[in-house]
Amino acid sequence: MNVIKVSGTSRTSAVAGAIAGVFRENKRAEVQAIGAIAVNQAVKALALAKSYLKEDGYDIFFVPEFVDVEIDGKVRTAIKFIVEAR
Amino acid sequence: MNVIKVSGTSRTSAVAGAIAGVFRENKRAEVQAIGAIAVNQAVKALALAKSYLKEDGYDIFFVPEFVDVEIDGKVRTAIKFIVEAR
Repeated sequence: MNVIKVSGTSRTSAVAGAIAGVFRENKRAEVQAIGAIAVNQAVKALALAKSYLKEDGYDIFFVPEFVDVEIDGKVRTAIKFIVEAR
Repeated sequence: MNVIKVSGTSRTSAVAGAIAGVFRENKRAEVQAIGAIAVNQAVKALALAKSYLKEDGYDIFFVPEFVDVEIDGKVRTAIKFIVEAR
């Protein structure tokens, strides 16, 4: 399962669609964002994906965790959101 | 139960402590943030509160939702995070 990577320029509805798609297939999704703008986009997408998936009968929730990722040889701290259902 | 309001200048550890405190008392907490910087601070605080509360045996998750709030007579869209445990 691929991690859905969100940037500050990601469109909320596109990310929400990706989250819903991955979740429907795997009953789980992982979303990663680095920086305040990207994290905000990710959270808005998660809120939107929640309403998409509610229509399919899934009641999803999120668990955030810090992860270190290497980008261009530098270590940065990202937020990873694990998406699961009750 | 009071909603924990997070601003862009809130300290992550202070917010995390507030979340953990409210959660321990109510087995639930609500965190509200407006704007990308505040949402990012809230998410970091949630990730930190998760590790605080894990030590107490709670496995928390959150559910984000959009809420309209009125500030100085203007309606703005905030993100509210409902914090619960499995």
